[in-house]
Amino acid sequence: MKEKDQQKVRLQLTKELNEKLIEIGKNVINQLKVYENPNVNIPLRSLSNVYFDEKDRLLRMGNKATERTYFNLSQSKSFMQTMLVASKLREVIKDGSHVGLRQLFYMCKQGIPGTKENTFDDQGESDIIIEDIEGVLRVLREQIGIVATSKGKLSGDITLVDSGDEIDCGKLGSSGYGIPSIVEKGVVDFSKTKSEFILVVEKEQTWIRLNQDKFWKKKNCLLMTGGGQPDRGTRRLLHRLHTELDLPVYVFTDMDIWGYYIYSVYKQGSINLAHFSENAAVPDAKFIGVKMSDVERFKIPKNHWIPMKKVDFKRVKEIAAYDWFKEDKAWQKEFKKISDFKHVVEQDVLVAKGLDFMSKEYLPFKFDTKDWIE
Amino acid sequence: MKEKDQQKVRLQLTKELNEKLIEIGKNVINQLKVYENPNVNIPLRSLSNVYFDEKDRLLRMGNKATERTYFNLSQSKSFMQTMLVASKLREVIKDGSHVGLRQLFYMCKQGIPGTKENTFDDQGESDIIIEDIEGVLRVLREQIGIVATSKGKLSGDITLVDSGDEIDCGKLGSSGYGIPSIVEKGVVDFSKTKSEFILVVEKEQTWIRLNQDKFWKKKNCLLMTGGGQPDRGTRRLLHRLHTELDLPVYVFTDMDIWGYYIYSVYKQGSINLAHFSENAAVPDAKFIGVKMSDVERFKIPKNHWIPMKKVDFKRVKEIAAYDWFKEDKAWQKEFKKISDFKHVVEQDVLVAKGLDFMSKEYLPFKFDTKDWIE
Repeated sequence: MKEKDQQKVRLQLTKELNEKLIEIGKNVINQLKVYENPNVNIPLRSLSNVYFDEKDRLLRMGNKATERTYFNLSQSKSFMQTMLVASKLREVIKDGSHVGLRQLFYMCKQGIPGTKENTFDDQGESDIIIEDIEGVLRVLREQIGIVATSKGKLSGDITLVDSGDEIDCGKLGSSGYGIPSIVEKGVVDFSKTKSEFILVVEKEQTWIRLNQDKFWKKKNCLLMTGGGQPDRGTRRLLHRLHTELDLPVYVFTDMDIWGYYIYSVYKQGSINLAHFSENAAVPDAKFIGVKMSDVERFKIPKNHWIPMKKVDFKRVKEIAAYDWFKEDKAWQKEFKKISDFKHVVEQDVLVAKGLDFMSKEYLPFKFDTKDWIE
Repeated sequence: MKEKDQQKVRLQLTKELNEKLIEIGKNVINQLKVYENPNVNIPLRSLSNVYFDEKDRLLRMGNKATERTYFNLSQSKSFMQTMLVASKLREVIKDGSHVGLRQLFYMCKQGIPGTKENTFDDQGESDIIIEDIEGVLRVLREQIGIVATSKGKLSGDITLVDSGDEIDCGKLGSSGYGIPSIVEKGVVDFSKTKSEFILVVEKEQTWIRLNQDKFWKKKNCLLMTGGGQPDRGTRRLLHRLHTELDLPVYVFTDMDIWGYYIYSVYKQGSINLAHFSENAAVPDAKFIGVKMSDVERFKIPKNHWIPMKKVDFKRVKEIAAYDWFKEDKAWQKEFKKISDFKHVVEQDVLVAKGLDFMSKEYLPFKFDTKDWIE
């Protein structure tokens, strides 16, 4: 995709968003005209409105919503904040700019004439309103142009067009492609790849080791990391690469309940961002390790095990009871095994067996024998 | 520089490092042969051994060292750890591999036969020993190949050779060049640039805004960020670009004592990493803002000021008393001004004046009128 085509995509999105934003304002004006209490319908983001979609196997936000009205002492401020953010967002989308969450906070933070009242006291308030508006408009904040932190990396044989620049992710040395916060169509585009699958590793240091070994070249894959608990940009790009290029996804984490949860976030989405899941989850992502059977097979020595803490045991129970795990026999077995084992085994220990052990022995064995959990 | 030439540089370094590491072992063997208590001399990294070099205007580590001996109950373990890490480092440098701090921890973590004793209980221990060895060998851990987190970004008209790949940092879209943890010669190389200076901004979101405006193109500069308190890779690359290409450096932070300290870290180095400063500091880096006079000139509205906290006032006093600030009249004035002003003004507020206000008005004014602090 050329720069011009990217612009076209962005212009079309801007037009749609602009219309949706104007709609919010028009509704309020119409309500005022007929002396109704102005309101806006905000989809509920609490746990009570999050459900696991059995068919699509991902987390979704339900249909519950609350009315936010102007003539209501407890809602008047947030109603005003919602209108203020919505109107500022029109500025942001106008020329396709990207704006940080903190920058947007300042754009919306203003005094109310004749009072000492602030429209926003801290960024937490504006962040929440942006999530509200994501729900109202049924768009992602990334589509509006709101950036947050980014920390993902990608290397492999694929060429991306990022803001008009062609970037060959197989020629980015030790750095790789730093996955930006916004990877929407029109900003980051791609058409094809010869790569056959995507390997997502939990930790940046694992990515560095495998990237230096050029694992992606040897196995003809794309190599990604979200640097621990992944940011939205990494999840969104993984989802797009998976769905648009039809590439299978394998996730490689620590053998540890927190690593298993990271896998689950890549796969089903996270409870906090359920409205984001359908655009970010990869329901058929497979878990490639580290798992209990690896400890014996690869003879991970005892002094490389780290004892589990109380909070780890508690978290295993919580996660084992999640809808998407509770009827999964393979995972229930795995949860029981690690609880009995009482130790954590990090992916970093594999490096102690040889600097290139992960890329020469561990991962080839896993892929060759299809030793993963679906 | 071509891939082959990069390899040559790395091989030469490996040879030197290997000899230095062997030297440590040989010394111990020689001491044993003559029935001396084996020891290794570890340069002291505490504040008492850090001084401000008035001539070069950067922090340096002094000459104080402690003997770490084998036959000494309180040192025996750390002596053994030092030897263990030194011997593992020979493995790391052998083929120029990069290894993470946590990975190295596992490489060195082993049981002692016949005991329940561990050589290392947590990563904190091995991290410290690596810093010890940096001091003993007078090299950087980056030269050995030890990677840590990285979060810096760079864009602009410069071509880097990173691990054999040519990367044009002016063609990396919204992503930019993600500055790796290791940017030593032989890994990241560059020969020239048409850019005239380097602008370093405190926050990633400021970098994103300015990068989208292609500020680096308009002003013919390189645009960098270390994402808040900068990591070692960002500081080291800045130092190399500055010294090897003779590019002036300007730092742009919040008007806030923590932002001013970030400037000071780029400029003089940090107390904790004094041994790193001569390879990372930029003593003639200039401070371009945000400063007190900007608040009036650019009419930053009162509701965009954030009240200073108690800890901020205390930190101003501490920093004002640092050797490299205490006789600097311009800075002493600035410190007094912000203490009297009692508020923080972040660089993000400038975006509220217009999405491209920073690149179209604020920064051009600062550069055109040379409104900086030396």
